[in-house]
This record gives sequence, structure tokens and C-alpha cells, in this order.
Amino acid sequence: MTDVVALLRAELGERVDTSASALEAARSDKSGHAAAGLPLAVVNAGSVADVQAVMRIATATRTPVVPRGAGTGLAGGANTGGGEISLSLRGMDRILEVRPDDLLAVVEPGILNADLNAQLAPHGVWWAPDPASRAISTVGGNIATGAGGLLCAKYGVVRDAVLGVDLVLADGRLLHLGHRSVKGVTGLDLTSLVIGSEGTLGVVVGATLKLRRAVEGERVTLTALFDGVRAAAVASAAVTASGVQPAIMELMDATSLAAAHRLLGLSAPAPGVAQLTVQTDGPVAADEARAIADVLRAAGGTVAVARDAAEGEQLLAVRRAMHPAMETLGTTLIEDVSVPRSALPDMFDEIARIEERFGLVIPAVAHAGDGNLHPNFVFEGPEVPAVVWEAAEDLFRAALRLGGTLTGEHGIGVLKRRWLADELGDDQWALQRQIARVFDPLGILNPGKVFAD
Amino acid sequence: MTDVVALLRAELGERVDTSASALEAARSDKSGHAAAGLPLAVVNAGSVADVQAVMRIATATRTPVVPRGAGTGLAGGANTGGGEISLSLRGMDRILEVRPDDLLAVVEPGILNADLNAQLAPHGVWWAPDPASRAISTVGGNIATGAGGLLCAKYGVVRDAVLGVDLVLADGRLLHLGHRSVKGVTGLDLTSLVIGSEGTLGVVVGATLKLRRAVEGERVTLTALFDGVRAAAVASAAVTASGVQPAIMELMDATSLAAAHRLLGLSAPAPGVAQLTVQTDGPVAADEARAIADVLRAAGGTVAVARDAAEGEQLLAVRRAMHPAMETLGTTLIEDVSVPRSALPDMFDEIARIEERFGLVIPAVAHAGDGNLHPNFVFEGPEVPAVVWEAAEDLFRAALRLGGTLTGEHGIGVLKRRWLADELGDDQWALQRQIARVFDPLGILNPGKVFAD
Ligand SMILES: Cc1cc2nc3c(=O)[nH]c(=O)nc-3n(C[C@H](O)[C@H](O)[C@H](O)COP(=O)(O)OP(=O)(O)OC[C@H]3O[C@@H](n4cnc5c(N)ncnc54)[C@H](O)[C@@H]3O)c2cc1C
Ligand SMILES: Cc1cc2nc3c(=O)[nH]c(=O)nc-3n(C[C@H](O)[C@H](O)[C@H](O)COP(=O)(O)OP(=O)(O)OC[C@H]3O[C@@H](n4cnc5c(N)ncnc54)[C@H](O)[C@@H]3O)c2cc1C
Repeated sequence: MTDVVALLRAELGERVDTSASALEAARSDKSGHAAAGLPLAVVNAGSVADVQAVMRIATATRTPVVPRGAGTGLAGGANTGGGEISLSLRGMDRILEVRPDDLLAVVEPGILNADLNAQLAPHGVWWAPDPASRAISTVGGNIATGAGGLLCAKYGVVRDAVLGVDLVLADGRLLHLGHRSVKGVTGLDLTSLVIGSEGTLGVVVGATLKLRRAVEGERVTLTALFDGVRAAAVASAAVTASGVQPAIMELMDATSLAAAHRLLGLSAPAPGVAQLTVQTDGPVAADEARAIADVLRAAGGTVAVARDAAEGEQLLAVRRAMHPAMETLGTTLIEDVSVPRSALPDMFDEIARIEERFGLVIPAVAHAGDGNLHPNFVFEGPEVPAVVWEAAEDLFRAALRLGGTLTGEHGIGVLKRRWLADELGDDQWALQRQIARVFDPLGILNPGKVFAD
Repeated sequence: MTDVVALLRAELGERVDTSASALEAARSDKSGHAAAGLPLAVVNAGSVADVQAVMRIATATRTPVVPRGAGTGLAGGANTGGGEISLSLRGMDRILEVRPDDLLAVVEPGILNADLNAQLAPHGVWWAPDPASRAISTVGGNIATGAGGLLCAKYGVVRDAVLGVDLVLADGRLLHLGHRSVKGVTGLDLTSLVIGSEGTLGVVVGATLKLRRAVEGERVTLTALFDGVRAAAVASAAVTASGVQPAIMELMDATSLAAAHRLLGLSAPAPGVAQLTVQTDGPVAADEARAIADVLRAAGGTVAVARDAAEGEQLLAVRRAMHPAMETLGTTLIEDVSVPRSALPDMFDEIARIEERFGLVIPAVAHAGDGNLHPNFVFEGPEVPAVVWEAAEDLFRAALRLGGTLTGEHGIGVLKRRWLADELGDDQWALQRQIARVFDPLGILNPGKVFAD
């Protein structure tokens, strides 16, 4: 054990941090879950060569390595425990190239999503993936989790926005995957395979991102209040079916809405009322907002359209307050199921059933434009109680029954690995595991994550 | 050998075709290249169970199997030779489900792209990938090659339009990959890995496609004539850089333009003149067309805007006549390099250099909106002469130097496998090969394609 740290120090000097606070911090992410035991060391990589050095030492000594961005993950994927090295990419945060003419940027993995976009803005371009955590999560972490966000029904998820990835393998070799050109079908699409692989295939040390041109024109924001979450879900499905594509369409159930209002010091919404918050953008934003307002009214909604961008931001602020509002209620396990959009109303019925069955309150929000729900299990104390996991399991099975998935955007990490085979089937599970072993024959890359033994 | 056919017949009866004409047809695709020797049999699968039966027999007898859609491939990927089974999916052509509300369709692999879209149209939805071969190629083939098309700079390629794939493995097991929901990050993204895998990982027996809502409003088509292909390429890069997104932006060099005009019986364009054909669509199509026309004029183009949709179709017909026009000149090897869009002018300079160096004429068209070029090597007789392969190699290296790729949309097949490692690097090549072996440990799925020994 001490040997490994000595080897790391010999090659990486000051970049190796074994302070108690650093080791403690590396044990957990934002899921609330922490790994057992303390990591051997945190290595703050400053270059591709640093990452390669770490992986060579890890391979030579058979030491597990957990890649880490900003540690905002909600599945425990970056959690590092006893005998493991936490490899932080956060310090590799440069933008190496911006090409507005080719709509691409080449970046290091540790740059925060919001910092990247702030630096892209003067060029008239942006990187579309916008997890609600964009101010605090890294592009490398976004790639490793295949992150989504509010805008992705219209502008796509990470999978749609990466041309290539530089990957350091478990043995320290560096591969350049993907292309700089828009199109390319040379061999197998390993770039896509790395997206969402949660640190199990290699360390993302660079990325060629596919950018979009800044969207011209105004943004129009509106809210619609409904008598209950089912009515709101039916209305959102009607918007999707109408063919008008909102940039944002977020659903908050009554408990979430009330909690967010309370946190922001706003007057309480009427009991039982759920809300849709919709934003349109682009050259015909106003027309689209009008069309959507009509659909929502026809579905029984009480619609309020923001007079200007500032008021629009205020309306969205309520949705953005969800996470901190939940934290005021207790410890939260944020779930992340996703279903076909037409199944959203049924999924909310299932949540109501599960609340009843387990005697829990499960405030839920949804990226309604793409059918991705975040039910929040709120409880006391640091450990997820058994009843919550039972309820979560019921939730997962309901989502699968409705043609959905365990995780729309947060990933499997440690928290969902015991259900992975339920969704994939045993054959696919075993095949995926074998593929990971091709990248990492010794099983030292983020072991115990995604694929549990 | 005869044993294998007997086994196939015992299980699949009439679906096993060993007629001379069927065997001969299975030897080649539209690349002009044919495999050595005659296949053992062509099996016309009618169901998933048929495919599984073939693969089980193939595994038991270690017999190579070559999956085949419509055989329109341009890389020799479906070519089947001595000792091999040609497994045709063309007969599995049903649409199993259309869900306009969820913007998805579930289909069998053998349906032709154009037939699918004809059946989707009444639902107000479409599947965006539009290879020029859409009337004659299958959805399964489109998926297996990761096909692109004219509309893909705006509406995406196959990779962007598939939610899930049902895959029969080499040993006959059936896997369901991917999701019905828009989002999903459960485990590794094997759906993306299968897209573009050219029949080396498994047989695509079903697909859940991501649809788009039909685009409302008019389409506006315009052409711009330029003094030489470099000027046209510079102009197309200027359109991309201007931020206006055409639905279609096709470039034809002087030789291509003249040949297409000749084939259609139109009066000849002025010597040396190259052409851009641009189409805009959607609610602001007319504004966008005006903006693009301004950019093209500023770049020295002579612009003509179609007065109506019918005239627009006539303008596009010239581009669509490219392939038959080339066939009138001789045998063609259609190349398919792709470069970052800003490198398009330089790539055309390279083509001019290569023409000069090898004493060849290489008519070229490009999907200019995404930097994908199709230089056509024209020659006499059935076999590609050595000088053409030398020139093609020079072309590939030029594309790679400019940050591009060997193949933007047609794939590696047999024709480009000897250059694959040049682009991927030896380490990535070996890794990809190992991944394919996880799916197909015996190496019976389309052996010798993509990964040459
Ligand atoms: C308030 C809040 C809101 C959120 N909203 C969203 C949302 O809207 N959408 C969404 O998708 N997620 C959301 N998340 C979850 C989280 O922010 C995302 O998963 C994010 O992509 C993680 O980035 P990170 O840099 O923090 O990665 P980390 O948490 O550090 O790591 C996440 C996983 O990726 C791996 N990893 C990280 N960097 C690398 C690398 N360079 N190479 C290889 N593997 C790596 C880790 O091993 C781990 O498995 C939210 C989280 C919070 C706290
Ligand atoms: C005139 C013309 C224009 C063209 N234009 C374009 C274009 O614009 N864009 C473009 O991308 N391509 C184009 N092509 C090439 C070709 O049409 C595409 O590659 C198409 O996707 C092939 O489909 P197919 O059904 O003919 O497949 P095939 O040629 O039968 O097979 C192609 C490859 O896919 C594999 N395959 C086929 N079906 C399956 C399956 N169900 N499961 C597993 N593997 C399978 C085969 O083994 C082979 O490797 C053009 C071809 C022609 C002749």
C-alpha cells in the first residue's frame, strides 16, 4: 500500500495528495453515498502524461483507480474507497482550440461545463448539454456519465455532442477515438461507447466537442398550473404530440412546487397544484409559445406568459430551486427513471401508488419534453433506509414495465448496479462486462461500479 | 460444405436458395467489387427465429455468415464468397409499430428506407437519414453502415436516429440493445457500437427508430455557379460560417456537373464551372435562402433561386443524376473521404494535385454542409487498376492530414480495410478487433471485412 503511494510520489510529486481532508472528500459524490474506507491517495493530474503515469503504476501494482471530475455525480460513480487511487481530472481545464467555422472545440476534461460555455459565448457558439449541475460539473464528467439536461429534448444530450475522445487505457496507453469531421464511420464507434461508461473503460483526457451556433432571437417562457400531476403530465404529452418543440419543458409535482416556493420565499401555490414550465427559443419562439399555450389551456392549464426575459428567468428559478429545496426537507436520494413520453402520466400514477404502498412522500420533477423523471426520496440521516430501496426497486420495475429505463442521465455507479442486469438481461450484462475487460483486462478501472460482481 | 447446406435446408426449407443466379448475385454489392468464389447458399430470412437458426448452424459448423440488406453498399461489405452463407434480411420488411406521440417506430431490418418513409408520411413523421440510395437500400443496411445523406448536416445521420437495436449474436442468441425512451444511460451504449459495425458484431433483426416531426412550411432551392471548384468550396464554408443552416448543400465540380447535364440532356454548363445546390426548409426557409444567396453572391457565385417546389426538384435532379452520369463514363470507384468543413477547399486542391500526379480525371461531388466528399475514380473494365488504388491511397492520406477520415458514410468493408489501421493507429485497431471478438468469438460474422488479417 505505502509502496503505491511512494511510486506515485516519485513520479508525480506534489500532485499526490494524502491529506485527511482530500482523502475524505474523495470518498463521496453528491449522491450522499460514501465508499467504505479511505483512498490511498488523491492524484491531481495536470497533464495527459500525469494520467498515463498513474495508470502505469496502477497496472504494475494492480491498484484500482477511480477517475473523478467535480464529484457532482448522483450515482456514487466517483466514490473512492480503501486501497484505491482517486484520479482527479479537475485541474486539466484548458480549452485547446475553438473553431466556430467547423463548429468544434477541443478541450481538456476538467473544465466546468459553464466555464466552457462562458468562454465559447464570444465566438457565437455553445456546447448544448446543460445538466442542471452545469456550473459545478466537468465536461469530462458529463461525457463519462452521458449527461442530459433541460434543453436536451430540443438540442440533444452529450451523446449527440461529442466528435471524439482521447482516452488513457488502464495500462497507460493513449488512444485517439473519433473524428474532427462531422461524419465518420471508420471502424467501430468507440467514442459513443466511452460516453456514459462512467470511468470503467478508460480515463477521458481530452474531447473534441460538437458545438452549435448560438440561437438567435428571443426566448419566451410560460408556466401552466394544473390540478394535479397527472393532468400536467397529460398536458406535456399533448405538447409533444402537437409537434411544436419547446426548448425546455419541465414538470414539478405539487410537493416539489410547494417546497421550491417555500425556499424562495414566494407565496404558496394552491394545494395539489402541479406546474409545467415551458421555454421556446429561436426565430419563431413567440409563435411556438402561443401554440403551446393553446395546447396547455385546452388541457385544462392556467397559463401565465412571462413579459420579458427577466420574468422568464424568475419562472425558471422555481424549477432550478428544486434540488436545494429538497435538501431542506432531509437527505435525498434523487432517482432518474426515463419512459417514452406518452407513458409519463402512467409513470406518475405509479409514483402515487408507490407513495401509498410504502407510506413515503416522493416529490418528483420531470424533464417532461423527453420523459425523464427525477422522483426524490427524502429521509432522515446519512444512510438510505431499506424501505426507500424497496420503494426505489418498485419504481425501477414500473419504469421498465412502461418501456423505460433505470437511468435517463445519472448513470448506474454503485447505487443501481444491482438492477442493471434486470434491464439488460443476463446475456447483455455479461457481454458488456467482457467489453469492459477488453479495455481493462485487470479490472482496475473503477471496479465495482456499473458492473457489480 | 454440403453438410452445411443440408443442415440449413432441414431447418429453413425453401428459404435456402442455391440457384446459380442467387449465388452469383450475392458475390457483389454496388461497389463493383466481387468476392472470390461462390457462396454456399443464400438464406432469405423471414423471421428472427430464421436468423437465429442460421447463426446456430453457422456456429456449430464454423461457417462464415455475411449479413445482407439490399446489397447497395459501396465498400463490398455484403459481398459473399466461397464457403460463406449470404444471410439476406431483405424479406423481413414489416413496420411493427409507429408511435407519432413518442416519435418512434419499431421496424424489421429489411424494409427499404423510402418505403418506410412513405408509410410514415401519413402519420406526419419521418426517419431523417436519407442516403442517396434511400429508394433501394434497407434500414438494416443503413444502420449497419451508419449511413448519411443529403439532409444530415441539418437532420443528423443514422447514429442520431436510432434508439435501440435487436441483435442476433454469432451463436444465435438475441439481445435487445438500447431504449424506447429518448434518454437512457444504462450500462454501455451498445446500440451506438452496432451502428456502422458492418455486420461484424451481429445481425440486426429489428430497430427502434427515432423519428422527427414532418417539417412544416415551404422548401426553397437555389443554385450558385462558381468559377472552379475551389471557389464553390470556399463559398460553402462561408455559408457554414455564416450560421445559417441549409437542409441540403451539395457541391458538384465541373466534370460532374457537365456529365450530369449531358445525361439529362440539358445544355452544357460553361467549361470549368462548379455548382452549389442549396435547399432550406422550415418556417423561415425563405429568409434563410435569402441570407444564403447573399453569402454566395458575396463569394462570387451566380445565384438562381427556384420559383417553386417543382423547379427546385429540377435543380436537385442534376445532383441526383451524379451516380448514373458517372456510370456512363466507365466503371467507377466512389470514394468517401470526410474533412472538417473549413478544410473542404484544401481537399479539393489535393484532388486536383492527385489528378495531375496520376494523370487521372476524378470527378467529385461533396455533401458540402458536412465536409463529406465523393471523388469518383472512373476506369475501364471490372477491376480497379493499380494506379487508381495508388491515387486513392494518396487521397486517403491527404484527408487524414487535413484532420479528416477515410470514410464519412460508406464504411470500410473490404475496399478500405488495408488503410483502417492508418487512421485508427495499431493500438485502437487491435482493441476494436478484440471487441468484435467478444460478440463473435469464432470470427464467423462477416470475416475479412473491416478488420483484415
Ligand atoms: C444539483 C445537481 C443537479 C444535477 N443535474 C443533472 C442533470 O440535469 N443532468 C445530468 O445528467 N446530471 C445531473 N447531475 C449529476 C452530475 O452533475 C452529472 O452526472 C455530471 O455529469 C457529473 O460530472 P462530474 O464532473 O461531477 O463527474 P463526477 O461525479 O466526478 O464523476 C461521475 C462519473 O464519471 C466518471 N468520470 C468523471 N470524469 C471522468 C474522466 N475524465 N474520465 C473518465 N471517467 C470520468 C467518474 O468515475 C464517475 O463514474 C446533477 C447533480 C447535482 C448535484
Ligand atoms: C447510387 C447510390 C447512392 C448511395 N448514396 C449513399 C449516401 O448518400 N449515403 C450513404 O451513406 N450511402 C450511400 N450509398 C451506399 C449504400 O446505399 C449504403 O451503405 C446503405 O446503407 C447500404 O444498405 P443496404 O441495405 O444496401 O446494405 P448492404 O449493401 O446489403 O450491406 C452493407 C453492409 O451492412 C451489413 N448489413 C446489411 N444489413 C445488415 C443487417 N440487417 N444486420 C447486420 N449487418 C447488415 C452488410 O454485411 C454490409 O457490411 C449509396 C449507394 C448507391 C448505389
